[in-house]
Amino acid sequence: MNSFGRIFRIHIFGESHGESVGLVVDGCPAGLPLSVSDFLEDIERRKGGVQKGTTPRKEDDLPIFKSGVFNGHTTGAPITILFENRNTRSGDYEKQREVPRPGHADFTAHAKYGGFEDFRGGGHFSGRLTVCLVAAGVIAKKLLKGIDIRSTILEIGGETDLEKGLEKAIEAKDSIGGIVECRVNGLPVGLGEHFFDSAESLLAHAVFSIPAVKGVEFGAGFAAAKMFGVDHNDPILDASGKTKTNHAGGIVGGITNGNELVYRIVIKPTSSTPKEQTTLNWETNQLENFSVKGRHDLCIALRVPVVMEAVTAMVLADLMLLNQKIKLVQP
Amino acid sequence: MNSFGRIFRIHIFGESHGESVGLVVDGCPAGLPLSVSDFLEDIERRKGGVQKGTTPRKEDDLPIFKSGVFNGHTTGAPITILFENRNTRSGDYEKQREVPRPGHADFTAHAKYGGFEDFRGGGHFSGRLTVCLVAAGVIAKKLLKGIDIRSTILEIGGETDLEKGLEKAIEAKDSIGGIVECRVNGLPVGLGEHFFDSAESLLAHAVFSIPAVKGVEFGAGFAAAKMFGVDHNDPILDASGKTKTNHAGGIVGGITNGNELVYRIVIKPTSSTPKEQTTLNWETNQLENFSVKGRHDLCIALRVPVVMEAVTAMVLADLMLLNQKIKLVQP
Amino acid sequence: MNSFGRIFRIHIFGESHGESVGLVVDGCPAGLPLSVSDFLEDIERRKGGVQKGTTPRKEDDLPIFKSGVFNGHTTGAPITILFENRNTRSGDYEKQREVPRPGHADFTAHAKYGGFEDFRGGGHFSGRLTVCLVAAGVIAKKLLKGIDIRSTILEIGGETDLEKGLEKAIEAKDSIGGIVECRVNGLPVGLGEHFFDSAESLLAHAVFSIPAVKGVEFGAGFAAAKMFGVDHNDPILDASGKTKTNHAGGIVGGITNGNELVYRIVIKPTSSTPKEQTTLNWETNQLENFSVKGRHDLCIALRVPVVMEAVTAMVLADLMLLNQKIKLVQP
Amino acid sequence: MNSFGRIFRIHIFGESHGESVGLVVDGCPAGLPLSVSDFLEDIERRKGGVQKGTTPRKEDDLPIFKSGVFNGHTTGAPITILFENRNTRSGDYEKQREVPRPGHADFTAHAKYGGFEDFRGGGHFSGRLTVCLVAAGVIAKKLLKGIDIRSTILEIGGETDLEKGLEKAIEAKDSIGGIVECRVNGLPVGLGEHFFDSAESLLAHAVFSIPAVKGVEFGAGFAAAKMFGVDHNDPILDASGKTKTNHAGGIVGGITNGNELVYRIVIKPTSSTPKEQTTLNWETNQLENFSVKGRHDLCIALRVPVVMEAVTAMVLADLMLLNQKIKLVQP
Repeated sequence: MNSFGRIFRIHIFGESHGESVGLVVDGCPAGLPLSVSDFLEDIERRKGGVQKGTTPRKEDDLPIFKSGVFNGHTTGAPITILFENRNTRSGDYEKQREVPRPGHADFTAHAKYGGFEDFRGGGHFSGRLTVCLVAAGVIAKKLLKGIDIRSTILEIGGETDLEKGLEKAIEAKDSIGGIVECRVNGLPVGLGEHFFDSAESLLAHAVFSIPAVKGVEFGAGFAAAKMFGVDHNDPILDASGKTKTNHAGGIVGGITNGNELVYRIVIKPTSSTPKEQTTLNWETNQLENFSVKGRHDLCIALRVPVVMEAVTAMVLADLMLLNQKIKLVQP
Repeated sequence: MNSFGRIFRIHIFGESHGESVGLVVDGCPAGLPLSVSDFLEDIERRKGGVQKGTTPRKEDDLPIFKSGVFNGHTTGAPITILFENRNTRSGDYEKQREVPRPGHADFTAHAKYGGFEDFRGGGHFSGRLTVCLVAAGVIAKKLLKGIDIRSTILEIGGETDLEKGLEKAIEAKDSIGGIVECRVNGLPVGLGEHFFDSAESLLAHAVFSIPAVKGVEFGAGFAAAKMFGVDHNDPILDASGKTKTNHAGGIVGGITNGNELVYRIVIKPTSSTPKEQTTLNWETNQLENFSVKGRHDLCIALRVPVVMEAVTAMVLADLMLLNQKIKLVQP
Repeated sequence: MNSFGRIFRIHIFGESHGESVGLVVDGCPAGLPLSVSDFLEDIERRKGGVQKGTTPRKEDDLPIFKSGVFNGHTTGAPITILFENRNTRSGDYEKQREVPRPGHADFTAHAKYGGFEDFRGGGHFSGRLTVCLVAAGVIAKKLLKGIDIRSTILEIGGETDLEKGLEKAIEAKDSIGGIVECRVNGLPVGLGEHFFDSAESLLAHAVFSIPAVKGVEFGAGFAAAKMFGVDHNDPILDASGKTKTNHAGGIVGGITNGNELVYRIVIKPTSSTPKEQTTLNWETNQLENFSVKGRHDLCIALRVPVVMEAVTAMVLADLMLLNQKIKLVQP
Repeated sequence: MNSFGRIFRIHIFGESHGESVGLVVDGCPAGLPLSVSDFLEDIERRKGGVQKGTTPRKEDDLPIFKSGVFNGHTTGAPITILFENRNTRSGDYEKQREVPRPGHADFTAHAKYGGFEDFRGGGHFSGRLTVCLVAAGVIAKKLLKGIDIRSTILEIGGETDLEKGLEKAIEAKDSIGGIVECRVNGLPVGLGEHFFDSAESLLAHAVFSIPAVKGVEFGAGFAAAKMFGVDHNDPILDASGKTKTNHAGGIVGGITNGNELVYRIVIKPTSSTPKEQTTLNWETNQLENFSVKGRHDLCIALRVPVVMEAVTAMVLADLMLLNQKIKLVQP
C-alpha cells in the first residue's frame, strides 16, 4: 500500500525516470498557511550534488501544487503536490536491464510485477521518491507547532568524524553505510495507541519506507541487551514524567512519556557502488562482472536526516490528530 | 488500534488481571483444520514457571473457541478465542498504584487514559497479552504450509552461553535483556508491497507490538553501517534469486527475494527488577525507594522466541493472502 | 471485513447456534460509565417473543463484559462483550441442509466457504448477530450526549397502521416487509468527510450490515426523482444553517447541516416464511417443495428500529470522534 | 477520507476551478494494457454540452498519465492520472460567495473548514470530480474481463420517456431529478464479505460518493416493503444458483449469488436551478432572492450512468481481487 496514516494520510506515487513523482496528503487540517517557500529548505537539504559523497544529479524540485491549497492556505481537501523529473538519463539504466543489480529491487520487482515494472533507475523503488516524503514532512512539521524534530548523522563507515568516513569510501572507491539519529523535543505525554499502533510500531513502519534502512532502535536500543533492569529503567523524577535517564528513548508501553524521543536507523551502503561486482545475467544465465553506471551517492546516509525527520513528523502529526492535540481548523 | 493486518486481520483484547484475554481473527480462510491441540506446543513454549529465569505464574492457557470453528475446521467467519485468567494475585499490584513503576506503562497509561486504565498487572499493556499473539501465530503457521519459521535466543546479558547470561542476572539479583532472532525458510519471492508496506515495515510494525522490544534489524542490520557496498551487496547466483551471501536478510527493495528471511530484535531487561529502585510517589509527590513485588521474569527474552515466530507468521500469512499464495478455501 | 469505523471501531463475531456471539469495541474513550443495566432497554427492544409477529425464541441476552471495563468505567482498552446462545434448537436446521433456503445466505455462503460454513440457523449470517450491533449502539449512544436518535416503523406490508399490516401477514400465513425510519436531533454541523466518507456513504455502509435491508434513502429520498430543484432545495433561514424544509434529510454535500438527520430503510419480508416454497435440493439435484421450520419473525422490521438506531449511533460516534467533538477521556 | 477500496484503492483529489482534478489508483495489477484511448468513450459519455439538459461547459478531459504506466502497461505501482481544468469561469461564482446556495455544500463546507475551503464552483465537492471516478472505472472495467456493467436512466421527473421528462424541466425553467439503474452480468458467486463489507454495503458506500445521490435500492428495493415472503424469495433453480425471479438483485446474505446484479439510485434535481430562490445572505444576515449563475445541468441524472458504472466497477474489481478472481500480474 502506498499510503500511510489514519487521519493525516499520505499517498505517494511516481517513478525515478517517469514524468514526475508526487504525493497526496489527505486529512490535513484546513487553514494551514502553505507556500512553495515552505518547502525549499528541506528539499535543499535532501538534494544531491552539493556535498562530497552525494550524487551529482540535481533537480530544481520545486513543489507544484495541484489541489488542496487556496489563497495560500490548506483547504481541508486533499493536497496534491508534483515534482517533475527533469534531469534523467535513462540510457544509463537500459543497458543494465539484463543484469539485476545486487542490493537493488531489480530482481524482486521483476519477479513480483512480471517484468512490467518500470525498471529505469529503480522506478517506483527509487530513492527519488523520498522527495515526496520530505514534502509530506514539511506539511507535518508545520502542524507540529512547538515540537522540534532534528536528525543528525551519527557515523559513516564506523567513523563519527564524518569527513573521515567519507574519505574511507572515496579511497576504497566503494559506497559506505551509516547511522542516523532523530531527536524530538516538545512532545506531549500520551501519543501512541496500545499494542499494534504503539509509537514505536508506527515510527518503525514509516521509517522502513525509506530505502536502504535495515534497522531501527529506540533509546538505548540494542545496547539494552547487555543492560541490567535497574540500569535501563529510567527513574521518574516529577509529576510531568521527567526521567533521570532516557534509555527508553521517550516511549514507554508504546506511548510517549514526555521526555525526548530518540531513535536511530542504520543505512546500508549504497547498493550502486562504483566497484566491480559479480552477478547473474538474465539473458545469458551466466554470472558476469559488471559496474554500476549512472550517478549515485557514495553514502546515502548523508541525505537521510531530512527524510527521517519527515517520516517522523508524518507519524507524529497523525498521532497528534488522533489524540485531538491538533485542531482540524488551524487558527 | 488493536488490530493488525489487511486480509488476515488480528484483533486482541483483555487485561492481565481481568477475566480473560483473547483475540478475534478475521479473514482466515475456511476449511483449515483447527483444534485445541494445535495450540498446546506454542502456548507451552511461551509459558513461565518452567525455565530458570521466568516467572512462576502459570496458567493452563487452554484456548476456548467462541466462534469461527465448526466441525473441527475454520468456517471463514471470524475466529474468537479466549484465554481465562485464573492465577492472578492482584493484591500485589494494588499496593503499588501510587508509585508508577519505571519502565512500565503505569505513568503513560495513567496520563493517556485519565486514571481509568486497568492498572492491575499492567492491564492491557501486560505481557500476558502475548498469549493472544501466540494463538494468532498458531493459526497463521498452519496457513503457511511449507514455510518454516524458527526463532532462537542469540544472547542474554551479552552472553551467547545463555546459562551464563542468566547466572549473571541471578547473581546481580537484577533482570537482564537479550537478543532474539527469527529465520524463515521456504518463502516465495515477491512478498511485501512497495513503499509503506514493505516486508520490513510490516514485520517491524508487528514485532514492536511485543512488549519490551526496543530495536529491530534485518540481515546484517546495524553492522551494515560499517560495511562497504561491495561487501554488503549479495551477488545473485541463479534465476531463482539465490544469493551468495545474505546481508539483506532475504528482503530487497522491501520485497522478499526467496532467500532466508533473517531478522533480530532486542529485548530490554524486564522492567520489574527485584532490585530496589527510586521513583516518584504520586500521592506524596516525593521520590521514594521501592521494590517491585509480584512474580516476574528475570529475562523476558526467554519467552519471546515463540511470540516473535507468531507475529512473523501473522505478517507473512497476511502477505501470502494478499499475494494470492494462500487459497481462500483450504483444500 | 467484520469491522467498522475509523476511530470508534466495532468488530463482531459469532454464530446463531454457536456458543456465543459478541463484539469488540476498539477506540472507545476512557472514563465512560458502563454497566449491564445500560444495555437492558435496547436489548429488550430487540428481543423476539414479545410482540405479535416476532419469533418466540428468547434469550436472556445479558451482556458479559470480558475486557475494557474496570470499576464501572471504560478504560480506553478494547471492550469485549459476549452474549451466550442458550435457547438454540439446531436440529431444526440440520434437516434442511440439503435445501438452500431461498432468500437466505445458505447458497452463497456454501459457495463462498466451500461447505465449511456453520450452516446452523444461518451461522454468522444470522439476524442473531444484530444483538452485537445493539450493544455497540448502546455504548455509542452514551458517547453522543445531547444527541437524540429515534427509529420508528413507518409501514408494514404497505400499511401505516401496523396492526393492520401484521394481520395481513397472519392471514396470508406469510412473512411481510416494512419500512423503518431514523431521525437524529442535536447533531452539529460538519460531520461527514468529503467524497468517499460522506455521512450518507458511511450510514448506508453500516445500515446494509443489518440483514434484510435492501434499500436506503435520505430526506426526500426516491421521491426526489420527481421533484423540481426549487422544491427540493431547502432554503437556509439563519446563520445556524436552519432550513425551511428538510428534503436533504440533514446532509448536504455529504456533511451534516445541523438540521434533523432523516433516513429510511426498507426491510424485505422474512425469508423464512411459513408458506411452502419450491427450491433446489442439492443432494437430489431436483426441485422440491419445502417449508421452513424453526422459529422466525413474520416481520423482521418489527425488531429493526433499535438496530437501526445502533448502527446510526456507531457511525455518528465515529464521526464525532474524528471531528474532535467527543473527548478521548470522558469527564 | 478520499480513498476507497482495500486492494484496488482509489484516491481522488482536485477542485472544480483549481488547476486540475485527478486520481491515484493503488493496487492495480501489473501488465494491464492502458492508454489514453481506453478512456475516451466513458469520458465522452460523462461530458456535458452534448445532450439537451446538460451543461454547456466542455473540457477535452484527456487523461494525463503521471505514474504507474510504462510501455503501455500498468506496472503495479500507483497509477496517477490528471485532468486539467481549462474551461473554468470562476468569476461567476465569486460574486455568490456571501450567499450559500441551497442544496449545495457551500454552507456545510464553510462551517466544516472554517472558510478556508475552495468555494469556487463547489471546489472539491463539485460534480467535476466524477471525471476521476469515471477514470477509475475505466481501469476497473478493463480488469473485469467477461463482466458486463450497464447503467441506464429509468426515469426523469417521473417520466420513463426521458425526452418528456426533460421537456417538463425546460418548460418549468427548473432542474429535475431522476432514477438510474445499473445491471451487471457475468459475476461469479461469492463476492462480498460477511457483515460490514457486504456487497450491498460496499456498493452503497461507493455510490453515495456520487454527488446528488439520495437513495439506493437493490433488486425489488423499496417495493419489498409491500411484498410477502413467498413472493420476494427467489427460488433456486439449479446448482449454479440460477433463480427464477431476481428480487434480491443478485445479492443474498450480502454475497453475490451469480444472478444479474441490479441496483438503482435516485438523483436529486440539480441544486443549481435557474429559478429564483430565497436564502440567507451571510454578509447582511438577511434572506434574499437570488438566481444561480454559471453553467449547469438541468438534470444531473443524464450524466450519471457512466459514473454509476464506474463506481460499480471499482467495488467489483476490489472484491474480485480480494477473492483472488483477478490475477496480480495480468496475462
